[in-house]
Amino acid sequence: MNIDSCKNKSIGIVQLLTIDLVLPADGFELEKDGLLKNITVAYETYGELSSKCDNVVYICHALTGDAHVAGRHAASDKKPGWWDEMVGPGKGIDTDYYFVVCANILGGCQGTTGPSSINPDTGKPYGSSFPDITIGDIVNVQKLFLETLGIKRLSAVIGGSLGGMQALEWSIRYPEAIDRCICIAAGASLSTQALAFDMVAQDAILSDPNWANGDYYGNEKKPAWGLAHARKIGHITYLSPEIMQKKFGREKTASNKDKASDYLFQVESYLDYKGKQLVERFDANSYLAITKAMDSFDLEETHGDLANAFASVQSKFLLIGLSSDWLFHPEQCVDLASALLGAGKQVSCCTLEAPYGHDAFLIDIENLANTIRAFLPWVSPTKHSNEENGAKVFAATSEHKCICEMVIAKTRVLDLGCGNGDLLTLLKTEKQTSGFGVDINLHNLIQATDKGHDVFQGDLDAGLSIIPDASYGYALFSSTMQQVMKPNAVLHEMLRVAKQGIVTFPNFGNWRNRLMLTLTGRMPKSKALPYEWYETPNIHMSTLKDFVELCRQEDFTILEICCIPGESMIDKLLISLGFCNLGAERIVMRISAQPSDNTTIIPPSKCHSA
Amino acid sequence: MNIDSCKNKSIGIVQLLTIDLVLPADGFELEKDGLLKNITVAYETYGELSSKCDNVVYICHALTGDAHVAGRHAASDKKPGWWDEMVGPGKGIDTDYYFVVCANILGGCQGTTGPSSINPDTGKPYGSSFPDITIGDIVNVQKLFLETLGIKRLSAVIGGSLGGMQALEWSIRYPEAIDRCICIAAGASLSTQALAFDMVAQDAILSDPNWANGDYYGNEKKPAWGLAHARKIGHITYLSPEIMQKKFGREKTASNKDKASDYLFQVESYLDYKGKQLVERFDANSYLAITKAMDSFDLEETHGDLANAFASVQSKFLLIGLSSDWLFHPEQCVDLASALLGAGKQVSCCTLEAPYGHDAFLIDIENLANTIRAFLPWVSPTKHSNEENGAKVFAATSEHKCICEMVIAKTRVLDLGCGNGDLLTLLKTEKQTSGFGVDINLHNLIQATDKGHDVFQGDLDAGLSIIPDASYGYALFSSTMQQVMKPNAVLHEMLRVAKQGIVTFPNFGNWRNRLMLTLTGRMPKSKALPYEWYETPNIHMSTLKDFVELCRQEDFTILEICCIPGESMIDKLLISLGFCNLGAERIVMRISAQPSDNTTIIPPSKCHSA
Repeated sequence: MNIDSCKNKSIGIVQLLTIDLVLPADGFELEKDGLLKNITVAYETYGELSSKCDNVVYICHALTGDAHVAGRHAASDKKPGWWDEMVGPGKGIDTDYYFVVCANILGGCQGTTGPSSINPDTGKPYGSSFPDITIGDIVNVQKLFLETLGIKRLSAVIGGSLGGMQALEWSIRYPEAIDRCICIAAGASLSTQALAFDMVAQDAILSDPNWANGDYYGNEKKPAWGLAHARKIGHITYLSPEIMQKKFGREKTASNKDKASDYLFQVESYLDYKGKQLVERFDANSYLAITKAMDSFDLEETHGDLANAFASVQSKFLLIGLSSDWLFHPEQCVDLASALLGAGKQVSCCTLEAPYGHDAFLIDIENLANTIRAFLPWVSPTKHSNEENGAKVFAATSEHKCICEMVIAKTRVLDLGCGNGDLLTLLKTEKQTSGFGVDINLHNLIQATDKGHDVFQGDLDAGLSIIPDASYGYALFSSTMQQVMKPNAVLHEMLRVAKQGIVTFPNFGNWRNRLMLTLTGRMPKSKALPYEWYETPNIHMSTLKDFVELCRQEDFTILEICCIPGESMIDKLLISLGFCNLGAERIVMRISAQPSDNTTIIPPSKCHSA
Repeated sequence: MNIDSCKNKSIGIVQLLTIDLVLPADGFELEKDGLLKNITVAYETYGELSSKCDNVVYICHALTGDAHVAGRHAASDKKPGWWDEMVGPGKGIDTDYYFVVCANILGGCQGTTGPSSINPDTGKPYGSSFPDITIGDIVNVQKLFLETLGIKRLSAVIGGSLGGMQALEWSIRYPEAIDRCICIAAGASLSTQALAFDMVAQDAILSDPNWANGDYYGNEKKPAWGLAHARKIGHITYLSPEIMQKKFGREKTASNKDKASDYLFQVESYLDYKGKQLVERFDANSYLAITKAMDSFDLEETHGDLANAFASVQSKFLLIGLSSDWLFHPEQCVDLASALLGAGKQVSCCTLEAPYGHDAFLIDIENLANTIRAFLPWVSPTKHSNEENGAKVFAATSEHKCICEMVIAKTRVLDLGCGNGDLLTLLKTEKQTSGFGVDINLHNLIQATDKGHDVFQGDLDAGLSIIPDASYGYALFSSTMQQVMKPNAVLHEMLRVAKQGIVTFPNFGNWRNRLMLTLTGRMPKSKALPYEWYETPNIHMSTLKDFVELCRQEDFTILEICCIPGESMIDKLLISLGFCNLGAERIVMRISAQPSDNTTIIPPSKCHSA
């Protein structure tokens, strides 16, 4: 189903529910020396719980978010929930399949226990007596809450920003309780810059005379200035500079544009509005409590290092960075992916082109929804047909068949330039390999994800530094080598991360290419080299002989060569006579950085003609 | 002289001087309805004024800077002036040659009249009665001040950040008074994001109860919190996120790291320190007055558009962006360069790799100093020898000689991939052309700048959108076409911006290449193609015939072809027999997007052999 066509379908009228958790007799113990004697949780659910309770997706909300994710509380509501475009029938998180749950987090002010709730010891709002909380506490409360609902296992936990941190914490704290962890626009901790902005924002609340050390609930004046100021700083960090420029430029408010002292820039008036809006619906102490929990979240510090943090996780991961997010730089997702790969876990990672900045996960929905939908189990039509018919049938090329024959069964393979994942699927089906693909193109990645493969969005020329040494049996470099800027560097990288490499490339030494250049004086074009010289993606062409020479020079051992002839009989004849560099249209070569005495040259009869 | 070796040379002991400007009888009129009845200016000078008064470099300081640029006021001073690494004997702005002047700006609080100065009407500090000022006012005061010193003309005006805005304003307001304008890390206006940060920062001062509507000078309490808070926000924007991460990470202050409520992050304590430091030396009202002048600076708004703003400027421009600057994005310098080019002005533009962020112009000095030094007249040893011996003698290649013969004298040429500027120098010397070079490599650009050429740092594959249509007689694309990702797109761009294009490239159709591929089965290597296939920068090779075919297909008219033979006699023989595509080692071709009936094929006797 096309997500586009579901844009206007909504979950409809929904209801905010509350539940009092059953706590241990001495209260709910917090990570940092504190107890809560009672905890109320406000939550919403969408879709239907399956009889096996195996279709639950738990959504973790961000800093000032709440349990109202989708739909409307009343038909007259002007706006639906905060992620209505993502959650609903036929949407990214499809309520036709999933039972979706979201609860307001601990420390919040939208129904779940927080600083503005009544302290049972005093009968007054907690205020300054509300204990310090952590993301761990927030997740512990969520777990207890879900158990109260009778839910023991999550098909997926998902969140953006602070919600992404919660999702990561879930994967570490309750490894057996979740199948999939989707973390969007977040990281293992706040960056120093984000921390600095938080410090300055918190300082505005703490310095507001009306904050009254946190005990302002009975007072006439609330720390509205401080909270609004904090929100303004925050809001700047949620938008990309480009979007800010586009939305507001240097426009001035209508009144008296001429006199400098009287005008406001539109952006100022917008930030004022955003500040006031938050003051109306949010509590300053909740803002402090939650941002402090966020500040102190640090998986590296808590667990020694990231690899250690993820040592026991069991879920599959999808890490999504947003290209224009400067609060949580996409690189932070890559660091997480790198640690997960290092710990030998299943992880997919991509950076979505999203102009809106950090808030893009709430706004630039389409690619995000498609990626999430592909990652979640069961839902897409492709997946259904997969389940019914086994792996999707496709016409494997001679090259792919040749690679498939070279690979030993049940090994781990890395496909560099994996495209839509067809080769990984072939290997999985024929050789029961487990695999991981790297590609630069999001559309390819979504298709490969949809086929169940783990994928990483990356530019091969930037290196494979996120992949640990010798972590794969084979690295495949299929019809991609000639398209990268630094083929030699990528070859070295592939033989670092895998025991063997399988490289395929068009052979410039084929007799047709030689003849064409010699006789016509033109750059060769053929079935294997279909592009004009000025627009070819094949920017580093080589012949079989060139590649063999490179291997000699770099001390790569050639283990196997398969020369794939073109359609012409001449190709096959030449190969059979041993003139491989003349006859081969394409080359498939298995190499290694380890010494070996044997090179197998696969005879043309065994080579698959195109 | 190597700038490195001058690092420790300082100008020595310097003195802050003050001068009362002689104002019109009714006072100094400000741009926005205000008058100042007296103005004191605090300034420093370094180096010696030449007898012709033609060696003055005026430095415009940034927001919280002052007149103390270099040297020390006393030997015991812990720190020298704020740009000591840039200004001094043998440095980027060389006091052995230049008379350098800097004055504290109007509205400041370091000796020049500002809100904390005494209002002659009341005998008390101005405070809230200090009128709104603009960058124009600041520059007008500087002009009057310099005239008071007897200086009518500046060899260069230079500044970074707010100082860069002043430099731009100088070029527009006093076009006849300046020879060179150097604008670093600035733009035609603040971006929306920068504006938003300023609004929030100003709001902190305005909301500080001790600000007292600006009249706090006699009070016990000053708006210290507000000013420090504003500074903290500002300081975050001055550093790149990478540098912040590197400097502070998530380190905590020593005391009590364990208890969340007690620790500070290092970055917080650093920002606190920076805030307090500013409070000690700066006045909150000055901060407001100057940031408001900066906020309202908008060359586009003031002049209708940027092209109009620069319509009457006479100086040469050097615009320098800093790669990691996110307060003034380097793109803002490119926009300025684009407007200047559009207005037909002389401009050089580059983006320096500088990790430090906006503050890099104060810290990452070396490349900045070299670039500025190359742009300023007289100083470098190369320039001296140029003056003595005319253009530097270098061995022109056959290709360059051939291009030179194709170009009509006294035209304007654009050199795409200009390298160190040798070809532009040859054309300037032999054909009196005026020129402009584009290159991606800073080292090349510095050399070309040093030779007096205007240069633009840019990636040809990103297009030439900053260059107006038909603004050059010739665009040269010399030995670069085969190295770009999209040669066809660049060809179209060059024929958009210039009436004719001269393209040179190695000819893959040369008999040696054909023979090598055919007989050895290896990718050709030769004097013209010296690289291995896997590391060649030549990623889009073509033959003479291919290129002719492309021209036919794209409706480019070939006006002239010069086939440059290699060393072998066979090359010359083949060309003389008309087998150009076999004989030519390199091709020089003059093309146009306009139709024409004649193609001149230059006979081999006239082609310059290598």
